[in-house]
Amino acid sequence: MRKAYLVTVALFALAFSVASASDPAPLQDFCVALKDYSDKSAVFVNGKFCKDPKLVTADDFYFCGLNIPGNTYNKVGSNVTNVNVDTFPGLNTLGISLARIDFAPYGQNPPHTHPRGTEILVVLEGTLFVGFVTSNTDNRLFTKTLNKGDVFVFPVGLIHFQVNVGKTNAIAISGLSSQNAGAITIANAVFGSNPPITPDVLTKAFQLDKKVVEYLQKEF
Amino acid sequence: MRKAYLVTVALFALAFSVASASDPAPLQDFCVALKDYSDKSAVFVNGKFCKDPKLVTADDFYFCGLNIPGNTYNKVGSNVTNVNVDTFPGLNTLGISLARIDFAPYGQNPPHTHPRGTEILVVLEGTLFVGFVTSNTDNRLFTKTLNKGDVFVFPVGLIHFQVNVGKTNAIAISGLSSQNAGAITIANAVFGSNPPITPDVLTKAFQLDKKVVEYLQKEF
Amino acid sequence: MRKAYLVTVALFALAFSVASASDPAPLQDFCVALKDYSDKSAVFVNGKFCKDPKLVTADDFYFCGLNIPGNTYNKVGSNVTNVNVDTFPGLNTLGISLARIDFAPYGQNPPHTHPRGTEILVVLEGTLFVGFVTSNTDNRLFTKTLNKGDVFVFPVGLIHFQVNVGKTNAIAISGLSSQNAGAITIANAVFGSNPPITPDVLTKAFQLDKKVVEYLQKEF
Amino acid sequence: MRKAYLVTVALFALAFSVASASDPAPLQDFCVALKDYSDKSAVFVNGKFCKDPKLVTADDFYFCGLNIPGNTYNKVGSNVTNVNVDTFPGLNTLGISLARIDFAPYGQNPPHTHPRGTEILVVLEGTLFVGFVTSNTDNRLFTKTLNKGDVFVFPVGLIHFQVNVGKTNAIAISGLSSQNAGAITIANAVFGSNPPITPDVLTKAFQLDKKVVEYLQKEF
Amino acid sequence: MRKAYLVTVALFALAFSVASASDPAPLQDFCVALKDYSDKSAVFVNGKFCKDPKLVTADDFYFCGLNIPGNTYNKVGSNVTNVNVDTFPGLNTLGISLARIDFAPYGQNPPHTHPRGTEILVVLEGTLFVGFVTSNTDNRLFTKTLNKGDVFVFPVGLIHFQVNVGKTNAIAISGLSSQNAGAITIANAVFGSNPPITPDVLTKAFQLDKKVVEYLQKEF
Amino acid sequence: MRKAYLVTVALFALAFSVASASDPAPLQDFCVALKDYSDKSAVFVNGKFCKDPKLVTADDFYFCGLNIPGNTYNKVGSNVTNVNVDTFPGLNTLGISLARIDFAPYGQNPPHTHPRGTEILVVLEGTLFVGFVTSNTDNRLFTKTLNKGDVFVFPVGLIHFQVNVGKTNAIAISGLSSQNAGAITIANAVFGSNPPITPDVLTKAFQLDKKVVEYLQKEF
Repeated sequence: MRKAYLVTVALFALAFSVASASDPAPLQDFCVALKDYSDKSAVFVNGKFCKDPKLVTADDFYFCGLNIPGNTYNKVGSNVTNVNVDTFPGLNTLGISLARIDFAPYGQNPPHTHPRGTEILVVLEGTLFVGFVTSNTDNRLFTKTLNKGDVFVFPVGLIHFQVNVGKTNAIAISGLSSQNAGAITIANAVFGSNPPITPDVLTKAFQLDKKVVEYLQKEF
Repeated sequence: MRKAYLVTVALFALAFSVASASDPAPLQDFCVALKDYSDKSAVFVNGKFCKDPKLVTADDFYFCGLNIPGNTYNKVGSNVTNVNVDTFPGLNTLGISLARIDFAPYGQNPPHTHPRGTEILVVLEGTLFVGFVTSNTDNRLFTKTLNKGDVFVFPVGLIHFQVNVGKTNAIAISGLSSQNAGAITIANAVFGSNPPITPDVLTKAFQLDKKVVEYLQKEF
Repeated sequence: MRKAYLVTVALFALAFSVASASDPAPLQDFCVALKDYSDKSAVFVNGKFCKDPKLVTADDFYFCGLNIPGNTYNKVGSNVTNVNVDTFPGLNTLGISLARIDFAPYGQNPPHTHPRGTEILVVLEGTLFVGFVTSNTDNRLFTKTLNKGDVFVFPVGLIHFQVNVGKTNAIAISGLSSQNAGAITIANAVFGSNPPITPDVLTKAFQLDKKVVEYLQKEF
Repeated sequence: MRKAYLVTVALFALAFSVASASDPAPLQDFCVALKDYSDKSAVFVNGKFCKDPKLVTADDFYFCGLNIPGNTYNKVGSNVTNVNVDTFPGLNTLGISLARIDFAPYGQNPPHTHPRGTEILVVLEGTLFVGFVTSNTDNRLFTKTLNKGDVFVFPVGLIHFQVNVGKTNAIAISGLSSQNAGAITIANAVFGSNPPITPDVLTKAFQLDKKVVEYLQKEF
Repeated sequence: MRKAYLVTVALFALAFSVASASDPAPLQDFCVALKDYSDKSAVFVNGKFCKDPKLVTADDFYFCGLNIPGNTYNKVGSNVTNVNVDTFPGLNTLGISLARIDFAPYGQNPPHTHPRGTEILVVLEGTLFVGFVTSNTDNRLFTKTLNKGDVFVFPVGLIHFQVNVGKTNAIAISGLSSQNAGAITIANAVFGSNPPITPDVLTKAFQLDKKVVEYLQKEF
Repeated sequence: MRKAYLVTVALFALAFSVASASDPAPLQDFCVALKDYSDKSAVFVNGKFCKDPKLVTADDFYFCGLNIPGNTYNKVGSNVTNVNVDTFPGLNTLGISLARIDFAPYGQNPPHTHPRGTEILVVLEGTLFVGFVTSNTDNRLFTKTLNKGDVFVFPVGLIHFQVNVGKTNAIAISGLSSQNAGAITIANAVFGSNPPITPDVLTKAFQLDKKVVEYLQKEF
């Protein structure tokens, strides 16, 4: 029974680009991230080291390709293209980032959080069913069906999701309140961590049979 | 000569919705702005008073209409639709906002600053020529021509502009690092303030003939 | 099979008290939360309204009872006693809080996040196995077995857990970087939200049979 | 006509030292900027790298020369002496700076903004007419004539100016809410950027004849 | 011997106006403090409630009187005139304040801290000997003699002092990184608190004879 | 008389580990401090340089030894064990720290401030008399006697103390709102700075006979 189902069940691997409400403020006009410097020097700072401002050009503040649909041919049927400080060095110290999210028909951006950012999403194409859950102990669920031009906000750190409930592809753009808010896809982090969480912890936490937990851990 | 020109010269009246890199962080899951409360009570706080969380519904986190083109039939040929805390109460305390910018052919979003936010812009339709100028004393200009799917970032507080250099309409979406970053259209603020700035100040500052200054002050 | 297991499987209902790394700084010596004012007036602010400082006494900076063991007779075998701005008004504007966590033998504080705070934990009694998972796409798991006097830190927003791996009760104290960081118990928020998340979303996200999802939603 | 006027019209080249309301807080007693290190290494950070604290001396927290009048023999008849992190390394991480502003009779500190700071100004000598303009769409102008001992505040990011309306020199001291808030002299940034902004943009934005724009761009 | 000395020994009662490096950022152009509102309503917020922006005038951003010498005819021979949010409502949410410090010949601004702000001081008249002490366990003392036009910075929270070492009056202006940083005059807070600290605590802490402590507590 | 007393009077040398309400927020999951890098390179940043995240292990988030009583055999009869970014590199960028405080019978943690943090203290063993003094000009003293399980909060930057008023040892744990808030023991900083503060300053400030000041400066 489960097997049959799993054929259509999805693996998701999205890295969301979001933005925290409280990135440290910039102390100069700009501080473009110095690519690969930390990789070579093995020294890091909060955020990124910056390029010599005399060498900065307009291209440092420019990113291209957000018009290209992401590949949604995966288990969850969605794809996130991040425009954060890792892919767009000009954002360093500026406290903001973007993402494009593509959804195949009935695809979803499964439940996840952004540990360092609030997300404001606008639908460009299609129809999305979206929601977030508040923290303990209420765990209230707020949901809405969004069409083209509709906007929704997911407060920092709360679990949220977006599902394409239409028969066509859907596209959304998200603004995020940090240069690198991170994303935690709940199922992946819980069942697919590296190394895996001891099954005993998860069987109790999720009230699942140990075999189911071990099965899930193999899948993720 | 001037007169002939002015027929096509534009007055602009856009209120941009941007986002500062350093809005205070939220101290609860959400704090939806309480509409009209300050108007009635004549008491205000930094940001907005908030609605009783028990009365909050999904609609408080929802805004619609960003699919509707703004009216660009004005002197600058552009229009900004703000999705900030004034129009979207759910953003209160969350440090982020959005805007849609429409451009008529050859329309522009004239030089302006956001006093409390960095702006990250993505082009949805058309071709924009964009740029920003760094602070004194370098005043370096960084410019780029953007096409569909291209992204650019305008650091907090710096003067920037966007011009539609194509023959068709253009559309952009901006993510902004504050719930209410404000916008200052330079020409409007300088020549169109209420009341006007003493012409003597502006003649010296802008090295313009007093008559030109007075003429401009009438126009804006 | 599942039934047999569930006898020992736990429901958890803990509300963690944590602290964000970036609460807004205080603008006066103290701003003790004004209890019940918002409840009566239905008006709220980011954080809490404050008591007249002339009426503040030493008792406003005092909380008692953290010596009392929490009741761990529940499905997860743990209990969190929060000392945050909701239970201790003197913390308002001060960016810090505490919690006491009690664990029955083999009890656990199941996977959860604090949307607005980092947690630093010290073990007072017993032996805890603790861990956290980093964000996408690495989802690295860092774990450690802690004994009396050992300290561990869980960075803001990341999923973490603590398990009593000893035969005796365990006790921990956590310092948290916000006056009200919130806690999101993953299993509760995902399977126990109010109202429930559409089962279709969860079956796909967690790769679970729909019946299992519906079963879990009844349990949480 | 214009020519005659321009003899007394001024070019201004002031770099204001201001301070943002939200510089990141210090994480140690002090972090004195390490002069020239970034120039040599071509590596930068948000703010400045810091000197070995063991090598820091009292001179690192000391700046001299604010008693020396600035040279106001220029087109705007004013001069700003900055005491910010670039000239006074001890300010690094401390979120504050100072400036001395000298005014020749009828000289002015022309319309400008500080992208990263609020300015509080006190008049030491003379009589200043000062003002600032609020953001769109109100663009309200607030002005005041200040005499010796009078204080005025210019909120972060708003366009403001100071004019010596007396027959004698005037002197002011400004406290600023960032270690390096930057200054943007509007006319310079708009008409004197390097390279120049396309005249077409400015003719439309400022409703000026293209020849006037090109004339101004040569002047600035 | 002590008696003879005490005739010239000073009691000091200065309330310094300083500014923290991390006041929350403003969320609108301005938020002028609403005078007396909290006194009447007995309800407070972090910072101050704000006046209806429509009723705000230029006078709200204006303070006068910093040209008037403070009365230094007191035991320490100094006087601080604060221009902070309590005396100048326009500063609310703006993260900066000023103070004027007057010194009689040989007067001092005795050892004190600003719990919420860094101070940058410029000497207008006279000669000051100034210093600050770093935190534990080094407790390094940095000192400098300042003349007219000299500037010094006292990092947030560190104990510092200023002494007029000249035969004439001295005047200084300080910029401070908060709208209300507070000041703690060490001797007053320790020996003159209300009610007094138990003498036993102070005898041990300061290694003073209990009679000396009790004597000091009467004096302060 | 004094001599007899001094036999039991204490010298204190505690370096408190506290936490500021406003440490800059993290811009990545973690940024573990790179030990000794600054010592070797003589280059520093606000906070600490960080270790290559690929080399980080669970041990970087782990500190042991808080179960070990500190040595209180000193003049004040207390001892502070800091768990801050200097001793626990995993705390870097995370805005929180801990401390254990041990008290001999009648020992005290003498009056001190934390320049960059609020402290929340919980008593584990014994009975403490604690208090803090507000800033000028009220200097109100708030005190409380705490027993096992009692909690008290000391707002950022205010002078506070803890005294063991019981016949047995006392133990407390403090959570602090910065990775490195620093501590300033008042008596040490004032009378024991290196080099010493000119006795003339202290005689006037503390209304003490110069010989007493010089005596104290020898002691501390």
